[in-house]
Amino acid sequence: MSAQTPLLQQLIEALKALPGVGPKTAQRMAFQLLERNREAGNKLGKALLAAMDGIGHCQSCRTFSEQPLCGICQDPARSQSPLLCVVGSSADMQAIEQTGQFDGRYFVLMGQLSPLDGIGPAELGLDQLEQRLAAGGIDEVILATNPTVEGDATAYYLSELCQRHHVAVSRLAQGVPFGGELEYLDGSTLSHAFSGRKRL
Amino acid sequence: MSAQTPLLQQLIEALKALPGVGPKTAQRMAFQLLERNREAGNKLGKALLAAMDGIGHCQSCRTFSEQPLCGICQDPARSQSPLLCVVGSSADMQAIEQTGQFDGRYFVLMGQLSPLDGIGPAELGLDQLEQRLAAGGIDEVILATNPTVEGDATAYYLSELCQRHHVAVSRLAQGVPFGGELEYLDGSTLSHAFSGRKRL
Repeated sequence: MSAQTPLLQQLIEALKALPGVGPKTAQRMAFQLLERNREAGNKLGKALLAAMDGIGHCQSCRTFSEQPLCGICQDPARSQSPLLCVVGSSADMQAIEQTGQFDGRYFVLMGQLSPLDGIGPAELGLDQLEQRLAAGGIDEVILATNPTVEGDATAYYLSELCQRHHVAVSRLAQGVPFGGELEYLDGSTLSHAFSGRKRL
Repeated sequence: MSAQTPLLQQLIEALKALPGVGPKTAQRMAFQLLERNREAGNKLGKALLAAMDGIGHCQSCRTFSEQPLCGICQDPARSQSPLLCVVGSSADMQAIEQTGQFDGRYFVLMGQLSPLDGIGPAELGLDQLEQRLAAGGIDEVILATNPTVEGDATAYYLSELCQRHHVAVSRLAQGVPFGGELEYLDGSTLSHAFSGRKRL
């Protein structure tokens, strides 16, 4: 017979919803919380419920936000910027924010075009993006979608949309990553780096 | 500025309490739940609160239980068994249950002797174990503590306790694990296997 009580079984089952967590890890997590850190377990439970219930999307850029507008869209210095960066996810947006390089506004697709998975322009809020382009005030759209097949397709679709609205459009440079060793780079990265080489 | 809302920050912070989860993994978990599976996030939140609040310890064997007595201790066929297996944690107990080899009762220490960490006999409920030994009905105590330095020390302490109560005591066999390759085994395992060799 199983030595697990129903509540414990439910907890282990629920932990398996986390990415990268299988049955063994879920069991270890449950036991660790129960044995050593019930307070942290309670805190995590409350944080999950509060976040799932309280976090919506920014009405302007679609990133996660508890307010109708996110912090960046509320910032007058940024929300008037002529630069608009389009990213695939809130995590990508955060990675860019952490570089401190960009001080314009964002638009978060929350996915990338993938017709086979039923993700089309409507799911990515592209009508909303189009309204923002039509409203004017944007000089350049920087496409920062992932350098993958889906990301490229999304970027291509978006570039056509921008051109229709006569807005300049650019894409993040592709090439060799900082600190990478040429020896271990894949062929596509190397060919992108070659074809995109810059004169010094 | 950070692109994270307070609720999101709290959630990421709380997820880091899980074993093996650092800041990057916590962020990925939070975004994945928010983007794709809010229902699972809610379920996990509720399961955590229910488990942290509702799961206590079995009064008899100390394993996790929602009832005063766990399923095994409630089972008359098992709770009258003359065999008592002492394990370090509920996870160990479950691993033994899954073999289907043992049909006696358990006593779960919920730790191992470690005076430097302030874990002495009282923390492991050894007075409770002693009461059970004194109450009689137990012919043999099987020590299934971990084959580590702390586990060995705990087993040594427990064996003296059992001898004082004139109860036979045994320890899990140590040797080469099934499917292991001798070439890659550590020296202590091999020497244990040699000194514990069996005549065929």
